[in-house]
Amino acid sequence: MSHTITVSNSLIIDQYINVRKTSEKICEPLEIEDYVLQPIADVSPPKWHLGHTTWFFETFILLKHFKDYEAYNPQYNFVFNSYYESVGARIIRVDRGNLSRPTVTQVYEYRKHVDQEMNRFLTSTPLDDDLKSLIILGLNHEQQHQELLLTDIKYILGNNPLFPVYNISSKIITKSKPSSPIKIPEGVYKIGNDDKDGFNFDNERGRHKVYLPEFSIANELISNAEYLEFMEDGGYANFIYWHADGWEWVKKNGITAPLYWHKVDDKWHYYTLSGFQAVDPESPVCHVSYYEAFAFASWKGTRLPTEAEWEVASYYFNWGKRWEWTESAYLPYPGFKKEKGAIGEYNGKFMVSQMVLRGASEVTSKDHSRNTYRNFFYPSARWQFTGIRLILNP
Amino acid sequence: MSHTITVSNSLIIDQYINVRKTSEKICEPLEIEDYVLQPIADVSPPKWHLGHTTWFFETFILLKHFKDYEAYNPQYNFVFNSYYESVGARIIRVDRGNLSRPTVTQVYEYRKHVDQEMNRFLTSTPLDDDLKSLIILGLNHEQQHQELLLTDIKYILGNNPLFPVYNISSKIITKSKPSSPIKIPEGVYKIGNDDKDGFNFDNERGRHKVYLPEFSIANELISNAEYLEFMEDGGYANFIYWHADGWEWVKKNGITAPLYWHKVDDKWHYYTLSGFQAVDPESPVCHVSYYEAFAFASWKGTRLPTEAEWEVASYYFNWGKRWEWTESAYLPYPGFKKEKGAIGEYNGKFMVSQMVLRGASEVTSKDHSRNTYRNFFYPSARWQFTGIRLILNP
Amino acid sequence: MSHTITVSNSLIIDQYINVRKTSEKICEPLEIEDYVLQPIADVSPPKWHLGHTTWFFETFILLKHFKDYEAYNPQYNFVFNSYYESVGARIIRVDRGNLSRPTVTQVYEYRKHVDQEMNRFLTSTPLDDDLKSLIILGLNHEQQHQELLLTDIKYILGNNPLFPVYNISSKIITKSKPSSPIKIPEGVYKIGNDDKDGFNFDNERGRHKVYLPEFSIANELISNAEYLEFMEDGGYANFIYWHADGWEWVKKNGITAPLYWHKVDDKWHYYTLSGFQAVDPESPVCHVSYYEAFAFASWKGTRLPTEAEWEVASYYFNWGKRWEWTESAYLPYPGFKKEKGAIGEYNGKFMVSQMVLRGASEVTSKDHSRNTYRNFFYPSARWQFTGIRLILNP
Amino acid sequence: MSHTITVSNSLIIDQYINVRKTSEKICEPLEIEDYVLQPIADVSPPKWHLGHTTWFFETFILLKHFKDYEAYNPQYNFVFNSYYESVGARIIRVDRGNLSRPTVTQVYEYRKHVDQEMNRFLTSTPLDDDLKSLIILGLNHEQQHQELLLTDIKYILGNNPLFPVYNISSKIITKSKPSSPIKIPEGVYKIGNDDKDGFNFDNERGRHKVYLPEFSIANELISNAEYLEFMEDGGYANFIYWHADGWEWVKKNGITAPLYWHKVDDKWHYYTLSGFQAVDPESPVCHVSYYEAFAFASWKGTRLPTEAEWEVASYYFNWGKRWEWTESAYLPYPGFKKEKGAIGEYNGKFMVSQMVLRGASEVTSKDHSRNTYRNFFYPSARWQFTGIRLILNP
Repeated sequence: MSHTITVSNSLIIDQYINVRKTSEKICEPLEIEDYVLQPIADVSPPKWHLGHTTWFFETFILLKHFKDYEAYNPQYNFVFNSYYESVGARIIRVDRGNLSRPTVTQVYEYRKHVDQEMNRFLTSTPLDDDLKSLIILGLNHEQQHQELLLTDIKYILGNNPLFPVYNISSKIITKSKPSSPIKIPEGVYKIGNDDKDGFNFDNERGRHKVYLPEFSIANELISNAEYLEFMEDGGYANFIYWHADGWEWVKKNGITAPLYWHKVDDKWHYYTLSGFQAVDPESPVCHVSYYEAFAFASWKGTRLPTEAEWEVASYYFNWGKRWEWTESAYLPYPGFKKEKGAIGEYNGKFMVSQMVLRGASEVTSKDHSRNTYRNFFYPSARWQFTGIRLILNP
Repeated sequence: MSHTITVSNSLIIDQYINVRKTSEKICEPLEIEDYVLQPIADVSPPKWHLGHTTWFFETFILLKHFKDYEAYNPQYNFVFNSYYESVGARIIRVDRGNLSRPTVTQVYEYRKHVDQEMNRFLTSTPLDDDLKSLIILGLNHEQQHQELLLTDIKYILGNNPLFPVYNISSKIITKSKPSSPIKIPEGVYKIGNDDKDGFNFDNERGRHKVYLPEFSIANELISNAEYLEFMEDGGYANFIYWHADGWEWVKKNGITAPLYWHKVDDKWHYYTLSGFQAVDPESPVCHVSYYEAFAFASWKGTRLPTEAEWEVASYYFNWGKRWEWTESAYLPYPGFKKEKGAIGEYNGKFMVSQMVLRGASEVTSKDHSRNTYRNFFYPSARWQFTGIRLILNP
Repeated sequence: MSHTITVSNSLIIDQYINVRKTSEKICEPLEIEDYVLQPIADVSPPKWHLGHTTWFFETFILLKHFKDYEAYNPQYNFVFNSYYESVGARIIRVDRGNLSRPTVTQVYEYRKHVDQEMNRFLTSTPLDDDLKSLIILGLNHEQQHQELLLTDIKYILGNNPLFPVYNISSKIITKSKPSSPIKIPEGVYKIGNDDKDGFNFDNERGRHKVYLPEFSIANELISNAEYLEFMEDGGYANFIYWHADGWEWVKKNGITAPLYWHKVDDKWHYYTLSGFQAVDPESPVCHVSYYEAFAFASWKGTRLPTEAEWEVASYYFNWGKRWEWTESAYLPYPGFKKEKGAIGEYNGKFMVSQMVLRGASEVTSKDHSRNTYRNFFYPSARWQFTGIRLILNP
Repeated sequence: MSHTITVSNSLIIDQYINVRKTSEKICEPLEIEDYVLQPIADVSPPKWHLGHTTWFFETFILLKHFKDYEAYNPQYNFVFNSYYESVGARIIRVDRGNLSRPTVTQVYEYRKHVDQEMNRFLTSTPLDDDLKSLIILGLNHEQQHQELLLTDIKYILGNNPLFPVYNISSKIITKSKPSSPIKIPEGVYKIGNDDKDGFNFDNERGRHKVYLPEFSIANELISNAEYLEFMEDGGYANFIYWHADGWEWVKKNGITAPLYWHKVDDKWHYYTLSGFQAVDPESPVCHVSYYEAFAFASWKGTRLPTEAEWEVASYYFNWGKRWEWTESAYLPYPGFKKEKGAIGEYNGKFMVSQMVLRGASEVTSKDHSRNTYRNFFYPSARWQFTGIRLILNP
């Protein structure tokens, strides 16, 4: 981790406290029962998120750098490790939802213990740049899990026939007025994070040149009303708009609408974190897979942007409401190098068969948004707050 | 339900209170998190058991026979129904473990409400024999679920790497001294429940004649020590002892010991409701599948008893520690008739591809044990407290 | 194999030639391409049947008892072995259909070679009773495979959209006139093969007493017309007639009619070995699973016979057109003992989770039919020529 | 299909005859049985390839453009259609291997009929450019299937325990001497087919600019000897070299070597079209998946080329022995447009989750090789003649 982070210890402590509190705040509206479930493999139990982000600081900071620190509970490495093959045997991912213990109370006690020790560590130890980088990585890691917490909570509650409300006042997004498309001239542009200030992940680093032909891109995300036109025009019933894999996914899973949508009395409703309600035509469509985003673009006679196009144009439009699917597969940037050790497993090993999403969503931590950020999911994933922005001259 | 049950209302009220309290007592040592999980399809979440047994009284007694009673929460029919196809759509069974709501507190409130209404009903309404039978069926149904509660709790805790203790003082079973085998002479015998006193299920009714050749049967169950001999002799590695289906099950699942057994430092241990401990050589072997019971008998050069042999001989030996696998498939008795309506789905529709177990186990409700009782499971099931008794002259 | 078979060598040679020729005659109408396929795991490629029955004689007679005989091709043991775990590694069953070599011509050459050697052996060697028994077992084994050949050929051709004709003149079965049901009085009867004359399998041996209550059984099989009434009355759409497992099978596989039935222009047709034709209302219904036979009986308000009832009554009705499903699970007779060695794998290891069929079918070798014969399949199987006979006073 | 093809009718007739004969020549060494099988979903039966390529000409040329032509057998559309959703219902792909009819002889008759009609058509009809393009597309389509025929024949024979020889004199590839790597300077380059002369596919069209940083690429493919070093260094046992998906694929399928490799007497052998033989250390490694190519590059501390790098550098090295995996996902080129109608299903709908291969293999039709050609497979595929070329300054 070679890039320099010029932050003071006390600033790091403030950030640490702030990030850690935020995770717990997100869970405040939950019942204990909500913390335990894993209804599908993609979704992790909230108590696992709380434990796993804590395990990260214990394993990579305290156990390695804080003299005499001993593991709070050696079995927690087994329980809260995620995909880090180099840190010892782990529970296979689908089993996370089969563990009633440690209890929620015990997980919060574990958090409290690690937070106290982190405080002792940070107030007593001079931090070199590598260590600072590692702590900031841990905080960004936890912010990623904050977003996952919200998406997973939505899935857990939204697949319960009682449709429990998470937060009655959860924000409403309304669409701004349509405006002119953005036109970008042909040229060689630079994309990627220049690693000059602030935090970034290894997969976005390495600012590099790309050649782009001229293109125009929409100023706004596709709304529910526009997506409904696609549905009503038989978009889900006509293979011509779909990838072969996408069409098989539609058929096999009986997909006829975005995730969380239900037709009640012939009118479309959806589950939101504020409860079950009629679909708002003005809001940007949400919870669509890459297959659906592609099929929608196809039906419109156009296409999704590449990630380079998106990044270059992103200075000229508002983004941050939805993670936006791109036409780009998730691949390494020129010169990409995996970090050594377990941290190196963070991003690189997922660079096959997934698609890049750009932007951020309404549940993304705000200081965690930047236009070089590369999110990635398999093309069938849709439990994230995903959306669609189109190229206008395909 | 034609058989006469001569019990007074007040006796029924006493029984009702007693049975209902017992279910809640079983759950006392649980944490809220333990109530929610369904780690495999066979195992139901404890809160589902508590809700489902309550739903039975609400649906079949209160809603049908108590004037003006209205459903406590109409959606609970959807959530707590089990396999009764005639009572409306139900959640597919494997989804029970994906429901964090209703919460445990709400389930207990539901129980309280139904118990109060049942009390009002029982103290205000003259009961005809059919109604008494139905209530007693409901109580026996709940007693069945009490046994399932304990088996399922054991599975939930026993598959957690922390091996939490359920109840430190859970009873220890010691083997009585070996004694002479029981010899039954050839003859025509009667088996089945004569429906004269007490409760019984439709599947055990219809006392009828069977012809039996002479046979001898063991006075005692097979112990862990005896089963270990089979293991150490390569019993799990030699196809010759196994059914073709059993051998495939062993290979596919990598089975090398009964459920809950783990080898630690070259010594066999197992998870019990009192925690993780060394295998007791004197205790009857537990948690074996029919495939394993058959293979063990095969290795011994003998066989399991048929259910008719078991029932005829059962007057001469002690039973009640383990559900005992028999060589009999679960099939209707001569003259078996399904009840009309949803209650008719109770037993008959399972009469294919399952094997009969006789006796009762250490976690069976005591007044729920009788030697005509027919339990049944698929040949691979072993999360119940199952055991082995052998025929001695195959 | 203790029972005495008093047949001369020359009679055995005649039988051998006759049985072996019959297998090849069955395959005469086939194209080479038809010999190779395995469209589902249950169905074996015809060339495999021809090779496997030959391998049986080579392995168990020639290699063991004919001095200096050497394997025709040692790899054929690998290719043509079926389920005999003790005779060496074998191709997993589902892979039989992936082998284009040995070619059909090579398989016939293999047959020719083994037949010549068997002739040399039988004309040169005095046979003791055990050896005679073994050869006769081999011939009965081949006769079983002749039936399987015809059922498998029907499946291979009947699942081809071109519906090729196997044999234009394949026999038509017409229903005899309805006649009185057969009434059997209560009593202790004997069933099972007394092993006195002719061939029998280990699973049917051990004539033994059973007690039967009085019952009446139909003189005739259920016809297509009768089965169509069940279909038209919504039999496949009402769970009340089905086992839980059967209902799941219906739903999962979208079953709405017996195997090979297709509705064309609103009229039911089926594929037969003589080609595609309208369903004959008078013929006995064929290609139903145990689940369907049970559901049909349930809809009629009655049940299937047990195998003991069937055997005792079989002296009074005609049988041999369809394998008839019984209400009995496939379990060992009292005193059943597996043979030693590979031959012992023949029957016993299948005695779990399968149902007994009695009788014989239109494609069963005639001298292979006897009323003690116990056929067995899983309850979902229906590619055999199965049918339904009912008990009339359930 | 807008690009102009300036070829005369008579030249097209010559090409037609030549291509069609080549397919049949490839099948000459086959036994009839070899034509029928589909051992895995990826592999199609050779007779299906012969029928499908014929169906293409019948459906898209004769039925649409030859007055009065009637379908040879209307059911063949059902049997020989592949993935063209718009041309009517088709057999699901995995079922191709369950069809014994039409026979091989009938398929050759079908070919003969279509060839005669095509000859009548081509000698009697003036062809406009669109029609010429379509015929040439059909010929290129058949050339693609010629390569698939050889790969599929290798799979069918190479997975038979008898390892039959296809062609004893099949060519041996020896490695040329190592030479200097090729260095390409930074710059904006053009890639893609400029559609000026000869045939090309829609997915390679649209010559367009790309920016490339400086890179060096190997002059030679990785040899078996080099790959063996990776194997002997534990490459298949160390997750650090693999994508997460790749590692799961290795574990789940027990992969320890390229496809067709077997260790005999502690020495590596492989199946080739000339039979089973010792691995030649000098030959380029073959039959590796993208996962393996990536892991090998990772172990070497380098990476695979992108498709743009490959194409730009391809003028300076020899290629054509192996399809070479690139680091590029299969995505549309800028300005890519699907053709209208069924032909439009040719390529575009596969543009998700697959990786690009560049070059050609030893079994590719020679006039079918060009350095703009984009082949694509899922990252786990390895039954093609795939290989590895590395970037030398990652």
